[in-house]
Order: sequence, then C-alpha cells, then structure tokens
Amino acid sequence: MSERAPSTALLTDHYELTMLQAALAAGTAQRRAVFELFPRRLPEGRRYGVVGGVGRALDAIERFRFDDEVLGVLDEGGVVDEQTLAWLADHEFTGDVWGYPEGEVYLPYSPLVVVEGTFAEAVLLETVLLSIYNHDSAIASAASRMTWAADGRPCIEMGSRRTHEEAAVAAARAAYVAGFETTSNLAARHRHGIPTAGTSAHSFTLLHDTERDAFTAQVTSLGRGTTLLVDTYDIGEAVRTAVEVAGPELGAVRIDSGDLGLLAHQVRAQLDSLGATETKIVVTSDLDEYAIASLAAAPVDGYGVGTQLVTGSGHPTSGFVYKLVAREGDDGELVPVAKKSKDKGSVGGRKYALRRRNAAGVAEAEVVGIGTPPVDDGDDRELLVPLVRDGVVVGREPLAASRERHLAARDELPVQARMLSRGEPVIPTVHLD
Amino acid sequence: MSERAPSTALLTDHYELTMLQAALAAGTAQRRAVFELFPRRLPEGRRYGVVGGVGRALDAIERFRFDDEVLGVLDEGGVVDEQTLAWLADHEFTGDVWGYPEGEVYLPYSPLVVVEGTFAEAVLLETVLLSIYNHDSAIASAASRMTWAADGRPCIEMGSRRTHEEAAVAAARAAYVAGFETTSNLAARHRHGIPTAGTSAHSFTLLHDTERDAFTAQVTSLGRGTTLLVDTYDIGEAVRTAVEVAGPELGAVRIDSGDLGLLAHQVRAQLDSLGATETKIVVTSDLDEYAIASLAAAPVDGYGVGTQLVTGSGHPTSGFVYKLVAREGDDGELVPVAKKSKDKGSVGGRKYALRRRNAAGVAEAEVVGIGTPPVDDGDDRELLVPLVRDGVVVGREPLAASRERHLAARDELPVQARMLSRGEPVIPTVHLD
Repeated sequence: MSERAPSTALLTDHYELTMLQAALAAGTAQRRAVFELFPRRLPEGRRYGVVGGVGRALDAIERFRFDDEVLGVLDEGGVVDEQTLAWLADHEFTGDVWGYPEGEVYLPYSPLVVVEGTFAEAVLLETVLLSIYNHDSAIASAASRMTWAADGRPCIEMGSRRTHEEAAVAAARAAYVAGFETTSNLAARHRHGIPTAGTSAHSFTLLHDTERDAFTAQVTSLGRGTTLLVDTYDIGEAVRTAVEVAGPELGAVRIDSGDLGLLAHQVRAQLDSLGATETKIVVTSDLDEYAIASLAAAPVDGYGVGTQLVTGSGHPTSGFVYKLVAREGDDGELVPVAKKSKDKGSVGGRKYALRRRNAAGVAEAEVVGIGTPPVDDGDDRELLVPLVRDGVVVGREPLAASRERHLAARDELPVQARMLSRGEPVIPTVHLD
Repeated sequence: MSERAPSTALLTDHYELTMLQAALAAGTAQRRAVFELFPRRLPEGRRYGVVGGVGRALDAIERFRFDDEVLGVLDEGGVVDEQTLAWLADHEFTGDVWGYPEGEVYLPYSPLVVVEGTFAEAVLLETVLLSIYNHDSAIASAASRMTWAADGRPCIEMGSRRTHEEAAVAAARAAYVAGFETTSNLAARHRHGIPTAGTSAHSFTLLHDTERDAFTAQVTSLGRGTTLLVDTYDIGEAVRTAVEVAGPELGAVRIDSGDLGLLAHQVRAQLDSLGATETKIVVTSDLDEYAIASLAAAPVDGYGVGTQLVTGSGHPTSGFVYKLVAREGDDGELVPVAKKSKDKGSVGGRKYALRRRNAAGVAEAEVVGIGTPPVDDGDDRELLVPLVRDGVVVGREPLAASRERHLAARDELPVQARMLSRGEPVIPTVHLD
C-alpha cells in the first residue's frame, strides 16, 4: 500500500489500552502469553471456511506503532496514564506469530493464528487482527463457494459499491485468493496487483441520444473486444445493434436483469445467428453461489458478482475470537488457562494443527492438539507456518501463492465440501489433548 | 482525519474510467447530467431507514483527485488512454450536490443524494458515494432500532473486531449518529471525536493468578469507577470479590454470557445486598434490537453491542443505487431519462422531496416529485439541503447536529415506526410527477 502507511495502533478497542495500563501497574504485563485466534463454529450450514487476510494482518502488525500523533490522542483524551504512554512510545511487537497460511481451508476450532509474546504486546493486537481475519475470511469463504459453483467459468468481483470503501478493496483481494479472476476495484489493482475489468453502466447508454450512439462511442474508444451492456431497453434489439456496430468480433455482452438463464439462451442463439459465435455472455444481477450454480446449463461465459460477495453471502463476519490460552506462571512456565466453559475448544495451551488425509490424499480430519504432534504417518499435513519471528515478519508471500494454495486445499476436501446445501463441516475436528 | 488525506479516486470501479474515456472521445462527456442515489426499497421488514455517511461522503468528494500516483496507476495498467489521463489530471468536481442531511429518516425512493454536473464528473463519483452511503446507512439504520429499543439506557458500540478495520471506524460513527453513547474504537475517537469507553476482557482475568488479583490490578490502576467483568469463573463469587475489592463505589459490572435477564436480576439483588446500590450492570453478548427489547424489564443499565451492529442486524448493505435521471439533450435542455422498467421510481428527472406531516406534526408521507414542489401548507418539511455548490462543500456539520436531527426525525414518525416486528414502511412514498 504505497500511497500511505499510517499507524494501525488506533484501530483497536479502548480496553486493550486500559488493560495494558492496569497490567503494567500490577507487574503482570510482561508475563509471557499465548493468544489464539480461532472459530468456535462455521457459519451455519457451511461445510468449510477459507482463511483470508493473512497478508493484510502482517502489514497491520508491522504498522502497529504508537507514534507521536497516536500518543497525543491517548494523552489528550486521558485514555491511559503517563507510565503507559511511556511504555507505548517504546513499543514494538517482538513476539512470534504462527498461523494458517492465506487461502488454506479451516474448520471449527482450527487455530488460525497463534500469537506468543508478552501479555502486553499480544493483547494489543486483538482487535485489529480480529477485524482483518473476521472480514477477509468471510469474503474468501463465500467467494470459494462461488468459484466452485462457477466450475471454471470466470467470476468477476464487482461489489465495491455495496460495502465500505476500504472493505471493498479487502473484499476484492479476498475474492481473488478464493479464485475470482478479476475485480472492478481500481485500488485493489493498485495495492494488490489484482487484474481489473469493467463493462459499462446503464447511465452510459442513457447519456447518449440512442443506444447505437452509446455502443458506437464505446466500441470506437475501447475496441471491438469490449463488453456492451444490452439490457437498457430491448435486449433483442440491443444485441442486433451491438453486432452491427462492433461486428462479430464483439468481445462480450452483459445482461444485468431478467431471467438470466432464459435470456442467456436467447442471446446466445441470436449472437450465433448473427455470426458472433465467439462473443461471450456475461451475466450480473445479485448473483450468489446458488444463482451461479443454477446457471450451469446456460450458455454463460462469466459471472459478475457484487452484493452477495462483499456481504459474505449471508455471513458477513466469521465469528473468530482471540483468546488467551496460556500465560506464564510464578515459576516462569506457561500455564494453560481458560474461561469456565463446557466448551471443548476452550481447552487452554499452545496448539498444533494437522490436516489428516487418507492414502488417496483426501482430507479426513482436522487434528488439533496441545504439545507434541503425533508422529506423521506421511499423510498428515502441518497447517501452522511461521508468520512473525521475534517481531520480524517472515510469512509474507505473493497473492498468487495464496490463490494456488486455496485451490489445492479445496481440492483435497471430500467431494461433499462442494455441496451448497446446508450441512455439517465436511471433516470433523479431532482434539488430541 | 488528520492522520492522512489520501486521494479517494481509486476507490472506484474500472468502468467509471472507461466510460469516461468513451464519452470524452464521443464528445458526450461534458453533457450536463443529474444522478440520483436512492433506495428502491427498505431492507425486508424494516419500517424506516436512517441516512448515514453524509459527512464522510463530503470528505471523499473533496479528496477525489487524480494526483500523479493515481494517474501512474491508470497509465501503467493501460486502464485509460492519454486523452483521458490528461483530462483527469485537471479534474476537480465543480458540480452541485443536494442531499438528505445525516441522521434524517428515509423511505423507499427517497432521493438521498442528487448530483448535478457534467456526466464526466458525476459518473466518476458513483462507486465511492454508493460505498459510503450503503455501508454507513445500513449501520445507522440498525443502530436506530437498537437505541429506540434501549429506551434511554445507553448503548455502547463495540463491534470493531467483527468487521473490516476501517469499516469499524465508520460503523462507530454511524452508530453515534443514531444514538449510541460511546464506542470502543479509538480511531473513531481520534477522527470523529466520539467518546470511547471500555471494560476489560476475560484474558485480563486469566492473566492473573486469581480473579481477585485481576480485579485489584484493574481497580488500583483505573479507579473504583471502572467496570469489572464478572463472568470468567463464577458470577456470584466474582460479584462478591468485586465489591470487596472496589467497595460499594464500584462503577459497574459486565456480564458477557448466560441468560442475561436472569443474571441481571440475580446480580442486581446481590449488589444491592452488598450495599453497592449505585453499581451499574452492563450486559454484552451478541445483542441485537430484539435482545435489547427483551431485557427492558431487567435491571440493566447499559447495552454493549457488537456483531449485530456492525453487520446491520441482518442487513449489512442498504441497496442504494446511483442512477442517471436526466441529461442534457441536443437543445441544451435537461431531458429525463430512465432504463426501461415498470418501476415507478425509475421515472427520470431531478427530484424534490418533502416529509408531509399532519397538524399534530406526525409524519404522514414521503412526497417525491419532479419540478416545482407543491405549495407548502405549513406542515411539509423539505428534505434536500445543499451539500456541495459549484464544487465547494457547503453541507458539513458537527456530528452532534446529525445526532440531534436523527432523534427529532425519528420522533416525528408514527408510533408504528418503533415496532420491531417485520412490516411495511411506516409512511408511504407518494410520487407527484
């Protein structure tokens, strides 16, 4: 994000700072601590989730600095006392972070991020890490279902207008990790190198005196390979005009309303009859994974997805929590800790995580435990990788690597993972304690 | 937002720029145009909506500049041609914007924003305006139902961790407009002057050897007025310890799990029996407007609201669209335009909007029309105010003004507006053409 690198230290909750103050005063702030970021469950009915936001989280950790402006805010408001301000001025994260790499699949209780450091430095990261992971993973998880439903046909992310303007950039990034081909968002192109694409809006057609004028303007300026929007007035007429204007080399037409399956068949037949056999058909109009799947038999060449992508297709947040699972005791040893709960997953301690696979390479279980992992029989895959070591980010990777990882991790799941109907997580989470 | 003022010009869709290119080449880019941002409907079952994001949108318009960095992105990627780059380099918005002021109530087809300028300058604002309004209004609309359900008890915004880290700041702002008292988000304090508050997390209790140690640390450092979290282990024991440590001057206790209504009664009785009659009870735990309403009879002094606030309580986006409604014809006059549709609200032309009220001052209808408004009989209230004039922002106001406006506009609605059950918009939208 070259255009700016502001501090992320205020993207946090008031109580992180006041807890720090109290712990500094009590002499407990420097205790070693292990925090874990994990889901207690998948969104209702989902078979698997997809880890998004890792690269953005690493950026946020690097930029989590209390510079003079930030300290001024905390001082002026009386948020924390002088001792805490002095501590913050010198603060940088010096701990270790392990995590599931971006694009990986997750299940309930997958330990997606493990942060080990002093309580002080680890607790401060709670809010910003949760914000990034909860948002980006919600989008990646929805996007993965959509690209799987599209079954090789390209998905185009175009939901920027339906979500917060910065969330839009992150959504484009998460969708790309989960297999989308392009985005409409120019900031995502700038910051993350994601290919952008666009067609045109109804306003462009309405601006001109006739639809023919609009198509001529677009084809003249952008070339015959452009995508013409054909549903402003009458689709049949628009397709005829489009091919008259652009010739059979017309790149694509977009249909944004009506019965998309029916219209796609009609438009395909019309394009073919006009000799525009290579002209593609792109459909848009509040698509989600179900609508995409329902168009599998229609002659559609690409899906433009907006609202349902950026709102996580019914699940706009992931429900991840960030919990203290172990901290240093009086003897200097790490002690597992947990809130009183009947909840299996709240068992404290630093975790390992393995994806257990059968001999055919198909995932069978998410194995999560404390201590030493079981001896690998050759089919287990370790899921936690180093992300930050002694405060230095070591886990950064190109987005293309996350994208490839996602496809591989998804393909490794049992075939039931692909079912869009509501159901249980596709593999069980096995706790070895 | 003193910490940075980057350009917002890339927070837009690829096609805005390519439409501009084609219109520049065709000589139609300079046609006068009127765009309107409006909802076709309310989220399903909602009685009214709340306008959020106006102030942020005005900031975004001011910062919508194609500086060298932005132009470099567009040039390098071949997004647009040389002529377009040259036009963009000189571009600043010189048009007019009218809109509903922030905090105002809206109904289906309320013309929330009217942008008049050249097609070129008006079309470019589409995506960023929609992003801001769609997000912030979704949050403000949900927040308004929550504060109304809370009926004077304070609502505390604490959802930052459940949404994108920048959306979190905007959500805190929108919630404040709609009556929330405080936020946990420190960046919202910094950028928007919203009061922040915080309690502590389970991790703080677990960090210490005993709950008593944790409470002592917190009270010693933050004072007796602090809020202690009492549900890490046993609530009854925790409340006893809390009062022992802090005395009856203890500010508040927070309950974050369990049957909140039942627990509130138990904790209230226990606090009173310990002489802590002034100690408040704050509840948190996935609250929404329905849960808040269900606690009306419980001795609760404040509601901390997170996930459901930042995700719009089931409606994370507002469904606003940005449509060309009129443009200059060959004769220099504005011509109403509209996509072919049976949709009443797609009737083109520049709108006026009035809130019609009866003699008792109760809202009766949203009156939307084209041309000259009907003569005011004294009970109509004009809804559109100037926001930008000749490119200069004129509609900025303190957040406190938006907050007051919201309460007044909400109170003006028929009493049915307060019903949480699903239903029709509380007043009809009347189109006068």
